[in-house]
Amino acid sequence: MEREDILLMIPGPVVVRPRILRALSRPMIGHRSKEFGRIYDESRRTLMKLFETENEIFVITGSGTSAMEAALGNLLEPEDTAVTIENGKFGERFTLIAERYGKAKPVKFEWGRSIDLDSVEEALVEGAKVVTMVHNETSTGIKNPAKEVSELAHRHGALFIMDGITSIGGDTVLVDEWNVDIGIVGSQKCLGAPPGLSALSVSDSAWNAIVENPPYYMDLRAYRKSAAKEVTQTPYTPSVTLFYALHEALNLIKEEGIETRKERHRRAASAMRAAAEALGIVLFPQLNNTTEYSNTVTAMEIPEGISDKNLRNGMLERNVQISGGQEHLSGKIFRIATMGNFTERDVLTTIQTLEMVLKEYNIIKRIGDGMDAAESTFSR
Amino acid sequence: MEREDILLMIPGPVVVRPRILRALSRPMIGHRSKEFGRIYDESRRTLMKLFETENEIFVITGSGTSAMEAALGNLLEPEDTAVTIENGKFGERFTLIAERYGKAKPVKFEWGRSIDLDSVEEALVEGAKVVTMVHNETSTGIKNPAKEVSELAHRHGALFIMDGITSIGGDTVLVDEWNVDIGIVGSQKCLGAPPGLSALSVSDSAWNAIVENPPYYMDLRAYRKSAAKEVTQTPYTPSVTLFYALHEALNLIKEEGIETRKERHRRAASAMRAAAEALGIVLFPQLNNTTEYSNTVTAMEIPEGISDKNLRNGMLERNVQISGGQEHLSGKIFRIATMGNFTERDVLTTIQTLEMVLKEYNIIKRIGDGMDAAESTFSR
Repeated sequence: MEREDILLMIPGPVVVRPRILRALSRPMIGHRSKEFGRIYDESRRTLMKLFETENEIFVITGSGTSAMEAALGNLLEPEDTAVTIENGKFGERFTLIAERYGKAKPVKFEWGRSIDLDSVEEALVEGAKVVTMVHNETSTGIKNPAKEVSELAHRHGALFIMDGITSIGGDTVLVDEWNVDIGIVGSQKCLGAPPGLSALSVSDSAWNAIVENPPYYMDLRAYRKSAAKEVTQTPYTPSVTLFYALHEALNLIKEEGIETRKERHRRAASAMRAAAEALGIVLFPQLNNTTEYSNTVTAMEIPEGISDKNLRNGMLERNVQISGGQEHLSGKIFRIATMGNFTERDVLTTIQTLEMVLKEYNIIKRIGDGMDAAESTFSR
Repeated sequence: MEREDILLMIPGPVVVRPRILRALSRPMIGHRSKEFGRIYDESRRTLMKLFETENEIFVITGSGTSAMEAALGNLLEPEDTAVTIENGKFGERFTLIAERYGKAKPVKFEWGRSIDLDSVEEALVEGAKVVTMVHNETSTGIKNPAKEVSELAHRHGALFIMDGITSIGGDTVLVDEWNVDIGIVGSQKCLGAPPGLSALSVSDSAWNAIVENPPYYMDLRAYRKSAAKEVTQTPYTPSVTLFYALHEALNLIKEEGIETRKERHRRAASAMRAAAEALGIVLFPQLNNTTEYSNTVTAMEIPEGISDKNLRNGMLERNVQISGGQEHLSGKIFRIATMGNFTERDVLTTIQTLEMVLKEYNIIKRIGDGMDAAESTFSR
């Protein structure tokens, strides 16, 4: 049976609200029309508020990975070094991309462990053109220290590329205050739009360091040139439909209020962690003082007495979809997102469903402790 | 006033039919779900029919340009040469992309003129890894000789990359018979879906010639690996929403019948040319025997007595949008597409509107000659 009513609590794509879904089905318009220019411009201005930046922002038709590649492909030449901080899958992706354009110098930490700033500094001593970091690492449920790493990078003359794909729009990101040279967001995460678009902010320092020969489709100079035209546009045909949805998703964010939205994410992640504790579930990340729990995804160890498959299928049969672990964490952890336009009800429904599955496998004796802990967090 | 009822007769994006628009607003699903895998797989199979190929086909979240870059970025290394045939804007784009990855050796013809096969062969004598050609050049309204150029390329040991972005789904393309190593289509052209997706077919010879270090987001090996998984998927988050629409657009194509669809395009372009002749409008292309008029877009010279701006604004005020010329052809030609899910009524409405504008500027004395000529073509 095809089920269209699954509650998606995975770290993207997230549930898309009906009014955003409806925006998708507006009739097609030309992508060099004034109407498209207006939609794109308004979206860029709202994104600047979410990024907390005066830097210009561009939207690429492509997933977050395409924007990660745009960042590195526009800044790295074969002789350039990128210090790539890895403590999860997406940190690793930056390394893989950097290797296509220049030299990657990964600084590796165990997945789910904090970044040690001294090790990052050590890697920087020999010089690097850029430092990459994933702000919110959804593979492990942690939030990395963007401000501190940016400071380190700039102290050593490097630019700072920050993947904010799963934090911007749901958590505090201060691109200008933190001095982020390229910041990145994806449409299908905290923004609550469908997947297929990504956006980047580009600092003056980044513009000054841009390479001669970036990838063509992701050439940031072309995006800047097209955005500066009399009618704002993109260099190649954009997904007009997804721009409608992004625009509507950003309208919804403005209506909610950016601070209220962040607070909603913070409270939901707190509630999820409180529920885990009450249910005897161990949080996966092991943090020191530089790193925090993510506010948009909670990673937990799979409890004794149930397999990954049975846990997630048990949830899915009850119409709630959560995620497993990626790569070597597959079978070891599960992840629940609190990302985008979810409600408290969605969070409580997810916890309730989790409790039902745990009870079925005799891991807990009664339903309610997780929900009670979460509710206490919400009502605090 | 925002007008949502404009008849888009530009060469992409084209009008998207209501049932395809409705498919866009289906609820979000995870992109590694069985349901997504089913949608992707079915779409790939239908695309194989449209491409007339047994080669595997992959869909990229990105516009046609991203697929053009995927083709060249996966086949060219710095020392490799691409012979890039140019007789319009999109042919030129292949040159620009090839220069980012290897050496481009453009074979240039005046925009709108036929390709001279001897000149192409001359360029191939010194050897090349690939030859690129735009099958249907929308910037000038011509259809280039794919079979002949492919034969030339292979005779000289080169691979043949064919941009079928604006022909596949609306005109005859025989990827296997013509021996096309990489064929490309865009979602927003003859397929009648919204923009934001592109698809490529990859031959065995192309797989054997793939480079070590292609762009990351467009790495075709990653697409092949993900498509071969137990649940068919894409390597990075795809635009789920656009895949819904593409799937529905392909269903509509199957219902119409591929041959019927091509015939509809052929007749419409004939009708458009007949109308132009009846109205004293000169067709822009100057063709020899290797090249034909496009069946998906008609390029015409702007008649004496009206400016580009007045012509197109006159149409737009009457709710029909057509295109002007690109680059140096701006102000000299105008273009009307017969692409995707248009109807005879749409074509006749466009001609009628054109006649109204021409009469307003005293270029024709009475309304009806163009429509009459078109109608005769349709009813033939």
